Amino acid sequence: MNADAGPDPLPSWREGSVKTRLLEFVAAVSTPGDPGWVAPQERIAVFDNDGTLWSEQPMYVQLAFALQRARSLVAERAELASHPLVAAALADDIDALMGHGLRGLLELAAITHAGMADAAFSGLARDWLREARHPQLGVPYTGLVYQPMLELLAFLRARGFRSWIVTGGGVEFVRVFAEATYGIPPDRIIGSTLQLRYGEENGQPTVWREPVVDAINDGDAKPLGIARAIGRRPIAAFGNSDGDLAMLRWTTAGPGQRLALLLHHDDGEREVAYDRASRFGRLDKGLDLARRHGWCLVSLRRDWDRIFPCSAQD
Amino acid sequence: MNADAGPDPLPSWREGSVKTRLLEFVAAVSTPGDPGWVAPQERIAVFDNDGTLWSEQPMYVQLAFALQRARSLVAERAELASHPLVAAALADDIDALMGHGLRGLLELAAITHAGMADAAFSGLARDWLREARHPQLGVPYTGLVYQPMLELLAFLRARGFRSWIVTGGGVEFVRVFAEATYGIPPDRIIGSTLQLRYGEENGQPTVWREPVVDAINDGDAKPLGIARAIGRRPIAAFGNSDGDLAMLRWTTAGPGQRLALLLHHDDGEREVAYDRASRFGRLDKGLDLARRHGWCLVSLRRDWDRIFPCSAQD
Repeated sequence: MNADAGPDPLPSWREGSVKTRLLEFVAAVSTPGDPGWVAPQERIAVFDNDGTLWSEQPMYVQLAFALQRARSLVAERAELASHPLVAAALADDIDALMGHGLRGLLELAAITHAGMADAAFSGLARDWLREARHPQLGVPYTGLVYQPMLELLAFLRARGFRSWIVTGGGVEFVRVFAEATYGIPPDRIIGSTLQLRYGEENGQPTVWREPVVDAINDGDAKPLGIARAIGRRPIAAFGNSDGDLAMLRWTTAGPGQRLALLLHHDDGEREVAYDRASRFGRLDKGLDLARRHGWCLVSLRRDWDRIFPCSAQD
Repeated sequence: MNADAGPDPLPSWREGSVKTRLLEFVAAVSTPGDPGWVAPQERIAVFDNDGTLWSEQPMYVQLAFALQRARSLVAERAELASHPLVAAALADDIDALMGHGLRGLLELAAITHAGMADAAFSGLARDWLREARHPQLGVPYTGLVYQPMLELLAFLRARGFRSWIVTGGGVEFVRVFAEATYGIPPDRIIGSTLQLRYGEENGQPTVWREPVVDAINDGDAKPLGIARAIGRRPIAAFGNSDGDLAMLRWTTAGPGQRLALLLHHDDGEREVAYDRASRFGRLDKGLDLARRHGWCLVSLRRDWDRIFPCSAQD
């Protein structure tokens, strides 16, 4: 199946049509002389983050950070507690927060992740990620990356691809861990943004984070973010929710070999089973569109031998 | 001066304090064991484009393209001729256009470079750049890149730097020639932008250029564009006008070895002499700030042995 001899580059992916498709696509585009060969500079892959590269259950990791930040902020500025988003955060009322949609979550981020220099924010996020633990599993959130996706990222890198993250999450939050965790550098993160302001503070030039949502990188904004930041159409796209469909469609509508893959979180035993009616990473239209457009639907239950780096193989 | 034996990496730079500073800086940050050594992922250089990498005289190259586009558009849509910016373009009234500032030029770009898919725009710009000739010199605009800066880009690349363009020009316009001309790929261009819209046109997903200015990448916006797109502070910055000062200041205020360089266009014989009172690339505050902050001021007359690739050495 894999054109090369040598060890399996995707050991956590079970044999089957999805793994075959992945191996065949990568072999075709990266093998000189293959009719599907693609020049290295065009070997661009884009990945959603939450629910695609790491777990988004029971809530987005950045939301867990925002809840903690809301508590810290209210200890200093009690008047913030009456803001509806902050009140919901203090009450751990995830349903209420999700009722405001991604915009509401980003407005909570604007309140809790801004009013400071960019370096101060990165420091806070880094410290929190080091200390915080997943409420049920007791491990650091960076332990809840998907082992099969880490293997896929490494495989693509070895075959001359450059991978970008294209996330609805905040770009500066994802930068704090993406290089060490995924091998994806800060300049390959496209995400939602708050407004920034430049000025001198105490004689030092400073990039200041303003408490105002700038851009929401979800849905149709994902191909636009790609066009803006990369300036080339990717040949491979990976997602898990309806917010990724425009990105997958944009990627696969180009000429030549194209690959799109949607993770279907259908493993209630080893992870969480959710799709059409989920609060997070809802996959509804995507289940139907995948068939129409020939995208790979990955069943976590069937296609992944292992979910997290620390979990035992089945 | 240069730590390495071997051929001079900067043959078009004359011996002197500027060349010495360039060679010493690059040697320090890229030589393992040197106290100034910088890890490769932090070796980021940022370059203004117009007036820094290629000529901006007698007008920005993109403005010359906009003038031609305005003529083509009015042939199809005569009513556009009454728009003040279009009227000035049809009259080649550069003074009137410059009176509207960079925003006015970008509004002219919004009128003349939008209302089409991104691929259609790139095609138009590519065709124009191939055919157009500089009004006085009769050569293609891409022949008016600065030979010493091409050498500097290649030298930095060979020493493990990654270079970005940070321009007030339109990002999609610069992408059309930057890779072939400078070796800088599309994902390393930060520029001014028009609004984009994603949708299906005739059943094909399309990124559509809207005739609305989105972001003006000049002055304080340059360090913000860098923070947004790169997520790391550069260690070297190159510019030629007051619109580059915030970028130079942001770059050199970081810790460790830093380099900032301002081109002073003082060679009226081999190029155009302009600084404090120029319509384009005005260098006024920069002449004073360079001294205060220890930035290198490059005299084209004194420091460059050759200006353009096709020009004879003096």
